[in-house]
Amino acid sequence: MQPGAVDFYFDFISPFAYLAWKQIEKFAENHQRPLVIRPVLFAALLDHWGQLGPAEIEPKRIYIMKQVLRRAAELELPLAPPPRHPFNPLLGLRLAAVDGIAEADRRRLIHVLFDATWGGGPGIEDVDAVAAMASGIGLDGRALVDAARSPEGKARVRATTAQAIERGVFGVPTMIADGELFWGVDSLADLGTFLRGADPVDRDKLAAWSSITPSAVRPGSARTK
Amino acid sequence: MQPGAVDFYFDFISPFAYLAWKQIEKFAENHQRPLVIRPVLFAALLDHWGQLGPAEIEPKRIYIMKQVLRRAAELELPLAPPPRHPFNPLLGLRLAAVDGIAEADRRRLIHVLFDATWGGGPGIEDVDAVAAMASGIGLDGRALVDAARSPEGKARVRATTAQAIERGVFGVPTMIADGELFWGVDSLADLGTFLRGADPVDRDKLAAWSSITPSAVRPGSARTK
Repeated sequence: MQPGAVDFYFDFISPFAYLAWKQIEKFAENHQRPLVIRPVLFAALLDHWGQLGPAEIEPKRIYIMKQVLRRAAELELPLAPPPRHPFNPLLGLRLAAVDGIAEADRRRLIHVLFDATWGGGPGIEDVDAVAAMASGIGLDGRALVDAARSPEGKARVRATTAQAIERGVFGVPTMIADGELFWGVDSLADLGTFLRGADPVDRDKLAAWSSITPSAVRPGSARTK
Repeated sequence: MQPGAVDFYFDFISPFAYLAWKQIEKFAENHQRPLVIRPVLFAALLDHWGQLGPAEIEPKRIYIMKQVLRRAAELELPLAPPPRHPFNPLLGLRLAAVDGIAEADRRRLIHVLFDATWGGGPGIEDVDAVAAMASGIGLDGRALVDAARSPEGKARVRATTAQAIERGVFGVPTMIADGELFWGVDSLADLGTFLRGADPVDRDKLAAWSSITPSAVRPGSARTK
């Protein structure tokens, strides 16, 4: 943990993570906070918490698409889905987490990978195409892809994902700053308020609420297990 | 279906539904749309779609509480949780759906029930207490409670919930207007934009996105079943 940092947890599979990524560097700069990049496998978060992803409930999938298009329009960001979705994001995540790369280069690489996913590009599943993208911004694409796919490269994403679960991350994007978790691109405004010291959460009310017990539990819910 | 209406789907169990309820009458009035009140059992929606509720994942439960307190503070609405949560909301839902009551009285009754739940009241599980609340606003509380608990009263909430599922409602609050579904208190602004004819959703992009197929499916996800 880097004191004072904003930890940004994301997976390329999430269009909301894309919309948050396109704002988070400037956001951290404006709030004079270091930004720590944490690529995590969203599917592993869902598995851990026993939750369905938003794309796994058909009417929610359609609704989420519309909300993504609405938020992208507001932010004036290009938004076009990848050729396949859901897809396997591991190659991209491992590249984003790769060791021995300057932080500025890592960020440029993540922009390229997100643009290839949600900015109208060819997706990030093909190894050669992804290596070429990295080379296209002046990096050694082949070496990076090899490092990403090494046992160490794979272990890094696994470790970051496990640490995210330990910190209670249940979705992407998630931002954690000063121990406080914010989920979703819409929560950037709440995080900003928090960082200005103006979070309206009443800690007494929260403590009282946290201690309330159920009088009815849905059969088959996680709470009955 | 009432043409032009805003259909408001809610369950007393949801604090976000409370926050939306406190705005929806004025919202519908401002947009010159009739408001149609649709009480539904949230647990049945979760069961149908195979989804966990937000209170069923511990870190999400805590996060949601904070978000509710943040939104309530913004809206300057009182927010204090009921004595038990989750609780059985069926008595409240059946009362909200009860037949043979003037629409203005139904709305006053829903305010009283929501206030008893999220406005610092005693909850809405006790039959006598709930009958007294209805009597307290000049209605025949005992007769209403009896009607709500009759086979017809129970069938009304079941039917509304089944109809909600048919229309793709997967959470509460949900607003549907002109066939377009909006989920969550935060989506009221999007619904307003839609009703003004300024929804930025690009229908061509949406159609293209809707037809994308997966290249990877999470083992155990609904899509693999």
